[in-house]
Amino acid sequence: MEKTKVAIVGLGTVGTGVAKLLLDHGDRTARHAGRTLWLQRAVVRDASKPEYADLPEGVVTEDLDDVLNDPEIKVVAQLIGGLEPARTIMLKLLESGKDVVTANKALLAEHGPELFGRARELGQCIAFEAAVAGGIPIITNISQCLSANQILSLEGILNGTSNFLVTQMDRLGMSFDDAVAQAQELGYAEADPTMDVDGTDAAQKLAILAHLAFGAHPRWADIPRLGVDQLDPADLQYARELGYRIKLLAVARLGSEGLELHVSPTLVKAGTPLAEVQDAFNAIAVRGDAVGPVFYHGLGAGQMPTASAVVADIIDTAVGRTRLTFQTLKQFNGDEQPRVSLRPFSELPGRYYLRLHVNDSPGVLGEITGVLGRHQVSIASVIQHEPANDGTSDVVPLVIMTHSAPEGAAGRAANEIENLDCVVGKVIRLRVKVGE
Amino acid sequence: MEKTKVAIVGLGTVGTGVAKLLLDHGDRTARHAGRTLWLQRAVVRDASKPEYADLPEGVVTEDLDDVLNDPEIKVVAQLIGGLEPARTIMLKLLESGKDVVTANKALLAEHGPELFGRARELGQCIAFEAAVAGGIPIITNISQCLSANQILSLEGILNGTSNFLVTQMDRLGMSFDDAVAQAQELGYAEADPTMDVDGTDAAQKLAILAHLAFGAHPRWADIPRLGVDQLDPADLQYARELGYRIKLLAVARLGSEGLELHVSPTLVKAGTPLAEVQDAFNAIAVRGDAVGPVFYHGLGAGQMPTASAVVADIIDTAVGRTRLTFQTLKQFNGDEQPRVSLRPFSELPGRYYLRLHVNDSPGVLGEITGVLGRHQVSIASVIQHEPANDGTSDVVPLVIMTHSAPEGAAGRAANEIENLDCVVGKVIRLRVKVGE
Ligand SMILES: NC(=O)c1ccc[n+]([C@@H]2O[C@H](COP(=O)([O-])OP(=O)(O)OC[C@H]3O[C@@H](n4cnc5c(N)ncnc54)[C@H](OP(=O)(O)O)[C@@H]3O)[C@@H](O)[C@H]2O)c1
Ligand SMILES: NC(=O)c1ccc[n+]([C@@H]2O[C@H](COP(=O)([O-])OP(=O)(O)OC[C@H]3O[C@@H](n4cnc5c(N)ncnc54)[C@H](OP(=O)(O)O)[C@@H]3O)[C@@H](O)[C@H]2O)c1
Repeated sequence: MEKTKVAIVGLGTVGTGVAKLLLDHGDRTARHAGRTLWLQRAVVRDASKPEYADLPEGVVTEDLDDVLNDPEIKVVAQLIGGLEPARTIMLKLLESGKDVVTANKALLAEHGPELFGRARELGQCIAFEAAVAGGIPIITNISQCLSANQILSLEGILNGTSNFLVTQMDRLGMSFDDAVAQAQELGYAEADPTMDVDGTDAAQKLAILAHLAFGAHPRWADIPRLGVDQLDPADLQYARELGYRIKLLAVARLGSEGLELHVSPTLVKAGTPLAEVQDAFNAIAVRGDAVGPVFYHGLGAGQMPTASAVVADIIDTAVGRTRLTFQTLKQFNGDEQPRVSLRPFSELPGRYYLRLHVNDSPGVLGEITGVLGRHQVSIASVIQHEPANDGTSDVVPLVIMTHSAPEGAAGRAANEIENLDCVVGKVIRLRVKVGE
Repeated sequence: MEKTKVAIVGLGTVGTGVAKLLLDHGDRTARHAGRTLWLQRAVVRDASKPEYADLPEGVVTEDLDDVLNDPEIKVVAQLIGGLEPARTIMLKLLESGKDVVTANKALLAEHGPELFGRARELGQCIAFEAAVAGGIPIITNISQCLSANQILSLEGILNGTSNFLVTQMDRLGMSFDDAVAQAQELGYAEADPTMDVDGTDAAQKLAILAHLAFGAHPRWADIPRLGVDQLDPADLQYARELGYRIKLLAVARLGSEGLELHVSPTLVKAGTPLAEVQDAFNAIAVRGDAVGPVFYHGLGAGQMPTASAVVADIIDTAVGRTRLTFQTLKQFNGDEQPRVSLRPFSELPGRYYLRLHVNDSPGVLGEITGVLGRHQVSIASVIQHEPANDGTSDVVPLVIMTHSAPEGAAGRAANEIENLDCVVGKVIRLRVKVGE
């Protein structure tokens, strides 16, 4: 049987999982690739680490040149995180004639056009299924399986850490900080979870999906985004009372006026598929003009789910499918004009959930609805509970659900409300998912 | 731009949808295929039908030779149903050097090894995404996206007609016959829905999936199957009372003793994803040893969802990916030994729902539990309502949920119970889904 030599750069969580699949399941990968996938090298920083001791003699090396200078190594899984040295290593791999598989969404979101351009010049290819939604094969599904469609919308829960935190806060009434501490203990959150919880990671993934599905070229940093780090358990509770769950939703929706793109904690109707995504799961609801709605649900991260995606890419690359797709689709082509323009965030229509605290005195509700009315934001429902009857406070929470209004108008109305004398503290404003 | 000439054989529901996508969205398919996909011919039986009048001049023909003898036509979508002449036409297409795309699961389930063997001999390839679950790209997902995994189980709602019927019976308390009549009116059931409602169609799809996912070679006709045609609205009602929904579930599950394979109306815990699949939707829950659980949900039939899958296959075939996959995976290779044996149905463990009518007299429950006990089928719960208090009948319904027991033992117990003097009429026995 033919043999394709493979290397891994970076034996961390994902790299170790990939090595495990290649070493322990050679029969399986050979059957699916029509050739033996042979793990020739794994490049690490410190080869003396005890966790590498199990790997076959001669595989682990600290010298990237052992990969670069071995012309028999055709496919390399580049599995180190961050931008540098990941970027430089990736360029070196391409320049030495390797096809590269990666799980690094930050790198693609930041340097996609450069890396893909260089790969194209060199006649090499890049595969990146694991970069978005881990075990859910959304990249192949959009680029290949749904290619007969104009994708109309794509709504996803793309950050497992955020979803885990929100699920726990919702279930146990925990504060955000307590949920983070618990998630770190359980391995569902990094020591520094900033990029996960502030919406950065989801925005980077959304930028990649929006490029593949719509031909948009958004800079991830320009995607309007809010994270779950500002969520209060009270909002989860009110949402529940209203028949909703709150999820960190990444949305790309095509309209006649352009592409809507944002990441934010969003009220999603309870009982609908996205609302019921629990714990560290990811999910993506895609709508295509021919296929209609397709829904994907699976583990968006973790060692083996992510390794599953990386090894599928290694197989596709060894078989030659990746090369064909790469040459055909011209992904991340910096010379190409975007096929769609982005709608200004302030113009996007949306429904909103507003929560604020008001003095329990006559006329207050009228004042607030007056502000909303002046900004043409109309009210769908209101929850105002009675004040605590122990007389300790005359400040009561007020929750308002609006009908559809432009983001900009809703934002201005919320600011104005926040400045009213009868309003105490900040106005919380969250988007409400429209449609099914 | 390069041009690949394409033909369609059979302009029925699906064929018309495929023609529509190719003709109306040439820009889209060209972008995804890296070449123009040019609809050169569409072969029909009666070219004078008014519905073909919209097609461009010269496309419609009654003569298959117009396709066979045109060496520039490389890819043909063969979209006529049934076994003959579909089989003969497919062989002719392959023999004249065409790659073939098909949606015909009956043909594959019956003649897969012959057709695939011939294609391999001739150096051609066959694509069949649309043959299972319509718009859900389950074939590519199993054969390619999840190829790093040993699939452990696969549970699907694969027949949209059955699911539509069951959903309507459940929602409206309709009888099976009334639901069929309504489904026919709405276009969700064929004039003769037998193959859909008796489990044949789901078994044919399951046979294909079991082959791809497990390397099994089941004959579809050997797969134990029950359809929804025997379902009584009363069972849907009791299932609901017990916290379940009834779905026509196709199951393939790998265990140390072989592969479990069957199609049957099954009680599925309410609130779990498969239980909540409504109307004509399909869904498939896959479990892989690396990726964990992945869930797919979408439209399993209908003109455009199915055409979406066919056109994706045409694109894959034109690009060359299908050929690589086909050569690598050696699907439906009759010379190859199955990689897994099928577990005898009678040995399969399962939980069961039993419904029967008994005389409302003392000792009856004891007699029935005695029979179950002798067959080592233990009881998890019982529902016995009071008899109608108008004294019109002393026969009462009894519903029993069992713990896990082998299919054979449960069947023998049910038969013996049916023969008890205190039991009136038949014993209904349905499987209950185990696990999440
Ligand atoms: N973990 C997941 O579930 C997941 C899911 C999807 C995508 N991803 C992406 O996959 C990539 C890897 O993630 P991970 O979780 O595996 O990260 P990780 O556990 O931190 O592993 C990164 C590895 O790269 C190694 N490394 C760093 N610089 C190196 C260099 N110059 N040469 C060789 N090795 C070097 C590190 O070595 P040391 O041990 O010496 O520091 C570490 O072992 C990231 O881009 C991440 O975003 C991860
Ligand atoms: N419909 C769905 O949603 C769906 C979903 C998945 C898979 N499929 C599969 O797709 C295939 C086609 O289904 P369909 O719904 O499109 O069926 P359909 O509407 O009955 O169309 C079949 C077409 O084939 C034509 N035909 C029959 N024999 C022919 C011949 N010798 N030469 C040329 N044309 C011939 C028929 O022509 P006449 O009009 O002259 O009879 C008819 O137009 C079937 O295998 C089905 O199982 C269908």
